[in-house]
Amino acid sequence: MGDLSLTHEIELRVRYADTDQLGTYYNSRPLEWFEVGRTELLRAHGITYAQMETRGLCLPLVEAHVTYRGRARYDDLLKITARLTLAGKASLRFDMEIVQAVTGAPVAAGYTTHAMTDGAGKPIRCPEWLTAALHKEIK
Amino acid sequence: MGDLSLTHEIELRVRYADTDQLGTYYNSRPLEWFEVGRTELLRAHGITYAQMETRGLCLPLVEAHVTYRGRARYDDLLKITARLTLAGKASLRFDMEIVQAVTGAPVAAGYTTHAMTDGAGKPIRCPEWLTAALHKEIK
Amino acid sequence: MGDLSLTHEIELRVRYADTDQLGTYYNSRPLEWFEVGRTELLRAHGITYAQMETRGLCLPLVEAHVTYRGRARYDDLLKITARLTLAGKASLRFDMEIVQAVTGAPVAAGYTTHAMTDGAGKPIRCPEWLTAALHKEIK
Amino acid sequence: MGDLSLTHEIELRVRYADTDQLGTYYNSRPLEWFEVGRTELLRAHGITYAQMETRGLCLPLVEAHVTYRGRARYDDLLKITARLTLAGKASLRFDMEIVQAVTGAPVAAGYTTHAMTDGAGKPIRCPEWLTAALHKEIK
Repeated sequence: MGDLSLTHEIELRVRYADTDQLGTYYNSRPLEWFEVGRTELLRAHGITYAQMETRGLCLPLVEAHVTYRGRARYDDLLKITARLTLAGKASLRFDMEIVQAVTGAPVAAGYTTHAMTDGAGKPIRCPEWLTAALHKEIK
Repeated sequence: MGDLSLTHEIELRVRYADTDQLGTYYNSRPLEWFEVGRTELLRAHGITYAQMETRGLCLPLVEAHVTYRGRARYDDLLKITARLTLAGKASLRFDMEIVQAVTGAPVAAGYTTHAMTDGAGKPIRCPEWLTAALHKEIK
Repeated sequence: MGDLSLTHEIELRVRYADTDQLGTYYNSRPLEWFEVGRTELLRAHGITYAQMETRGLCLPLVEAHVTYRGRARYDDLLKITARLTLAGKASLRFDMEIVQAVTGAPVAAGYTTHAMTDGAGKPIRCPEWLTAALHKEIK
Repeated sequence: MGDLSLTHEIELRVRYADTDQLGTYYNSRPLEWFEVGRTELLRAHGITYAQMETRGLCLPLVEAHVTYRGRARYDDLLKITARLTLAGKASLRFDMEIVQAVTGAPVAAGYTTHAMTDGAGKPIRCPEWLTAALHKEIK
């Protein structure tokens, strides 16, 4: 079966709050858009991050990387593609790509890596219900 | 003694993150600057908001009001004047004024009103240690 | 014909970025949600704010008011109802109400008032194309 | 003379606005703190970023990387160390490290790389006034 990898695509509009004085999106915004991409990928595959936390699984970020590829202005419609990979026994990785929904012009890309911890921050292995859910999706 | 009222003044620089596509500050930012003004007013009078929370006193916002008075660009130095008033037995009010530090040109003004609650959100009266601290300051 | 008033309703999810240490939304976030409500109300009535700016009409905020009514956590689905009123010849007002989409529990309410200016910030009267567009909707 | 490298250190307090539901800083905030670190490094060496833009030099981000190393709560005092390197003829790099100011405990680290462009986004070489200013500092 090889790599466990799930993908999901959403659309999202640039808010005025996302823009800055240069007339494009402020540089920290892709990390918020990545968050929306992660949340909706999990929901689309039957797991919500809010439920995960209730079950005692948190996914704190270990690393984040952003490559800035093009401009996006207020009200531009963006397409965000997220891909989830299990990266080892206690780690997840989300690869993200953001383009202009209408033209396909690149806007930003990057990834985040996440540890798996309980609510108190102690590392835990990927719980069976999660690997089961992911495997089910992929078959 | 009349009104219990404390004031405090701080300076703060506009970040690139605060600006928007119109070249001035985004409209929600004054509420973040008000937060900094409140925090530093309390610290200047010997009370930190973080300690308050540890002692079981929270000050959730009930209302906020902002009047937008002038532009502010990236790197502008702002002067924020905060005034704290005890508004009834279980309520605080912070009045805020923001101007350009160099020219005095008006930027924004407004206020926030706050309930007093314990950590679970239950309303409580203004604790004696707080009124004592405030009275001591004012004499 | 009485009051010119348009309404529109959208749904929006609370992002992790919107929450704070108290476990509810940070107090400046309703102003960002109000922005989304305004943007989508205009789009639903055939006018986009981005087009307005291109035509030389800006709507800078004059005042904003928020009443905090209840908690909202990460991933909660909110319902935002926006109502637009022409308030005088050179002024618009948006009244906003935010509730939990599932339970109807109140989250926040408020309003923003806006001047009408050209791109350089000079006050202008409500342009005919806008009043025409609004009247057409209401008949 | 070897590497052109300037460093600067500032302190900054965590705002309530920076925290999230997990009780630590939200993952996009280090990028805003990096911005403050860059701005103050340049100012400390006699150049303000605002002046740069006026002179027609912009430094749009090409890449950003964040490593999350530890928690930071509301009102924690952070120490941000920024190091600027000229990375090629048309590129700058800022390396950043953020620790708790009181304990030295690590909070976050990372870097941003920047292109050099004119106001219209066209790539330009590092202007002489900037290399001169940097060299003067380093001798």
